[in-house]
Amino acid sequence: MAVRGPLLRDELDIVIPTIRDLGFLEQWRPYLSPYHLIIVQDGDPTKKITVPEGYDYELYNRNDINRILGPKASCISFKDSACRCFGFMMSKKKYIFTIDDDCWVAKDPSGHEINALEQHITNLLSPSTPLFFNTLYDPYRAGADFVRGYPFSMREGVPTAISHGLWLNVPDYDAPTQLVKPAEKNTRFVDAVMTIPKGTLFPMCGMNLAFDREMIGPAMYFGLMGDGQPIGRYDDMWAGWCCKVICDHLGMGVKTGLPYIHHSKASNPFVNLKKEYKGIFWQEEIIPFFQQVKLPKEAVTVEQCYIELSKQVGEKLNSIDPYFTKLSEAMVTWIEAWTEMSALHKKGASSK
Amino acid sequence: MAVRGPLLRDELDIVIPTIRDLGFLEQWRPYLSPYHLIIVQDGDPTKKITVPEGYDYELYNRNDINRILGPKASCISFKDSACRCFGFMMSKKKYIFTIDDDCWVAKDPSGHEINALEQHITNLLSPSTPLFFNTLYDPYRAGADFVRGYPFSMREGVPTAISHGLWLNVPDYDAPTQLVKPAEKNTRFVDAVMTIPKGTLFPMCGMNLAFDREMIGPAMYFGLMGDGQPIGRYDDMWAGWCCKVICDHLGMGVKTGLPYIHHSKASNPFVNLKKEYKGIFWQEEIIPFFQQVKLPKEAVTVEQCYIELSKQVGEKLNSIDPYFTKLSEAMVTWIEAWTEMSALHKKGASSK
Repeated sequence: MAVRGPLLRDELDIVIPTIRDLGFLEQWRPYLSPYHLIIVQDGDPTKKITVPEGYDYELYNRNDINRILGPKASCISFKDSACRCFGFMMSKKKYIFTIDDDCWVAKDPSGHEINALEQHITNLLSPSTPLFFNTLYDPYRAGADFVRGYPFSMREGVPTAISHGLWLNVPDYDAPTQLVKPAEKNTRFVDAVMTIPKGTLFPMCGMNLAFDREMIGPAMYFGLMGDGQPIGRYDDMWAGWCCKVICDHLGMGVKTGLPYIHHSKASNPFVNLKKEYKGIFWQEEIIPFFQQVKLPKEAVTVEQCYIELSKQVGEKLNSIDPYFTKLSEAMVTWIEAWTEMSALHKKGASSK
Repeated sequence: MAVRGPLLRDELDIVIPTIRDLGFLEQWRPYLSPYHLIIVQDGDPTKKITVPEGYDYELYNRNDINRILGPKASCISFKDSACRCFGFMMSKKKYIFTIDDDCWVAKDPSGHEINALEQHITNLLSPSTPLFFNTLYDPYRAGADFVRGYPFSMREGVPTAISHGLWLNVPDYDAPTQLVKPAEKNTRFVDAVMTIPKGTLFPMCGMNLAFDREMIGPAMYFGLMGDGQPIGRYDDMWAGWCCKVICDHLGMGVKTGLPYIHHSKASNPFVNLKKEYKGIFWQEEIIPFFQQVKLPKEAVTVEQCYIELSKQVGEKLNSIDPYFTKLSEAMVTWIEAWTEMSALHKKGASSK
C-alpha cells in the first residue's frame, strides 16, 4: 500500500510525555508538524516546556490533570512516562501515535529517512493475521502474499488495533541487560512487519507506538508507576499484557516490526534497576497469570473486558503484593474516567 | 555465533528428493560437498540420475524402497516429493538438511553468497523462545538480546528441533495465488530468524529445511501424496502441522526466517491446482483440528506422540474423507518402519 503525505490528519493525535523542551520535534517537522500534539508534562508543573514553532498542541501538566479528573486523577501516574495515557484519554481522535522525546528520525539501509508515522498508519489500516503464521511476514505488503498452506478462510485477517514500532541504536533493554552490555547498539534493520499470534504475549514498548483509540483505547492504561508506587518502567509492559489479552479475546490484531525510530540515549541503568527490580520478580508471576487469563464470552466491549481483567488482577495477583489491589482499583477508576471523558467529548461535539 | 567451514560434517546428512540429474549441486559445491547426500529418486527407477563428481552419496529408487521396507513401503509416497522422508529414515545422523533440486545459492543484499547450511546449523545449535515473543527477533544472535519485559526465567529458551528457511525469487505460493500473481517474485531479504510461538501453527515448506533428527525425526513424516492418492503438495504441510503440535507438547522449538535460498522456477500452477484442490478444502478442517489437538501427558517421546496423533487423525478427520483413515494407518506404519530401521542402524553400529 503506497501512502503519501499527512494521512489521517484529522483523525490522529500525537501524544508525548515529557519533562523538558521538545527540541527533538525540529527533526520530525516534515513528518509530524501536520498533526495535533497532546503533550503530557510530567514532574514540576511550574516548569515551562518549549515546543518548536509551527506545531499545533495542547499541553497538560499535573495541575491540569488534577483539575480535570478530580479525585480520579489518582489513576494517572506521576514522575513516570506512564502519565502519557492521560493524553490518550484527552484525545478525541480515532488514532494515536505516541513517541518518546529521545527518539529521532531513523534511516533505512539505503540512507533514506524513515517516516515512522506513515508506516504506523499503513500497519493500522491493513489487517492482522493472528490465527495462523505467515512465513513471508505481512501478507498484505506489496510483493508479499499468503504462502502455500495458509487457510483461505483466514486470509481476510482481523482489524489491526496496535502497531508496535522498533528502535535502532539504543535498544529497549532492562537494567540488568544494560549493565551487562552497556555499549550494545541495535544496528540490524529488519525489513518486516508481522502479527503477534493469538495467545502469545509480547513486551510492548511505549517509545514508538500507534493504536486505534476507538478499538483498544480503554485498555491502553499504563498503570500506577513512579511517584508513590513501588515500581516503575513497567507501564508499557502492563498496557501491552492487558491489550494483547483483550485483542485476542475480541478478535483484533497487534503488529510489530517496522517502523524504526533512532533511540538516542539509554537511560541510567542504576536508576532503572531501582525502578524495575520489583517488576523483574513480579513479572515471573504476572506473565503466567496473563498467559492463562480467560475473559467471559459476555465481555464484548473493551471496557467490559478491562473491568473483568481488573477483578482477576485484584483476586489473583494480590498475593504477590498489596500493590495489585491498588492497581486493580486504579484500573476501574481509569475506565470510569475514560467513560466520563468520552461522554464530555461527545457532548462537546454535539454542542458545536 | 560465528560458525565457519563444514560444521557437524559427521553429524549431518543432506536429503534430496529428485527425478533428474543433480546439476544444481555444482553451484552448492563450496557449501555442501563436504557432507554426505541421501538421494531419494522419485518416479521411474530405471532412469539413471547423475550426481556431480566429488560428492559422497547413497541413492535410493523405488525398487530400493520396496526391497528395504517390504510391505511397509506403502507408507512412502511415490511421484511426489513426499518420498523425501524415506531419506530421513535411512540417515544415521543427528541432523538433516533437505533441499529441493531447483533451489540455488541466494545472495544477501550486499551481494555475498549465502551459506544456507551454515545458517541452519546456527539456528539448530541455539535455543528457541516459544513461550514469549521477543520483539528484536532471535535474542541469541550477535548484537541482539532479550528486550525489557522479557521474563528472566524464560531466557534459557528450549532446544531447537526445526530450522525453516525461506526463498528469494519464486515464493512458495499455492496454485490459486500462482495463477493470480504469475510474475510475483520475492525480493525482500528480511534479516531475521524467529521462533514460532507455542500454540501457533505455520505452513512448513520442505524446500529448504533442516532439523534435529534425534529430537523430531519420527514426526517428520510427509504423508501419503501423489501416485494413487487423492492429494499432492501437502506433504510438507502435513509434516509441519504434526511436528509443531509435538514440539509444543514436548517443549522443543521451531525457528523460521534465515537462511534464504534462490528458488528458480515455479512449478506449473495448473498441475499444482489439480494436486492441491482437495487440500485447499480439507485444510479448512484439518487446521482447526491441529489447533485444538491435545496430547496426553503420558506421551513423552516423539513416537508416542505420533501414535497418539495418528489415532486422533483416524477418529476426527475421517469424516472429511476415507483418505484420512488410510493416512492414519500409514502414520503407524511409518513409526513401525522408523523403529525397525533405527534398530538396524544400532545393530549395524554395534557390530562394526
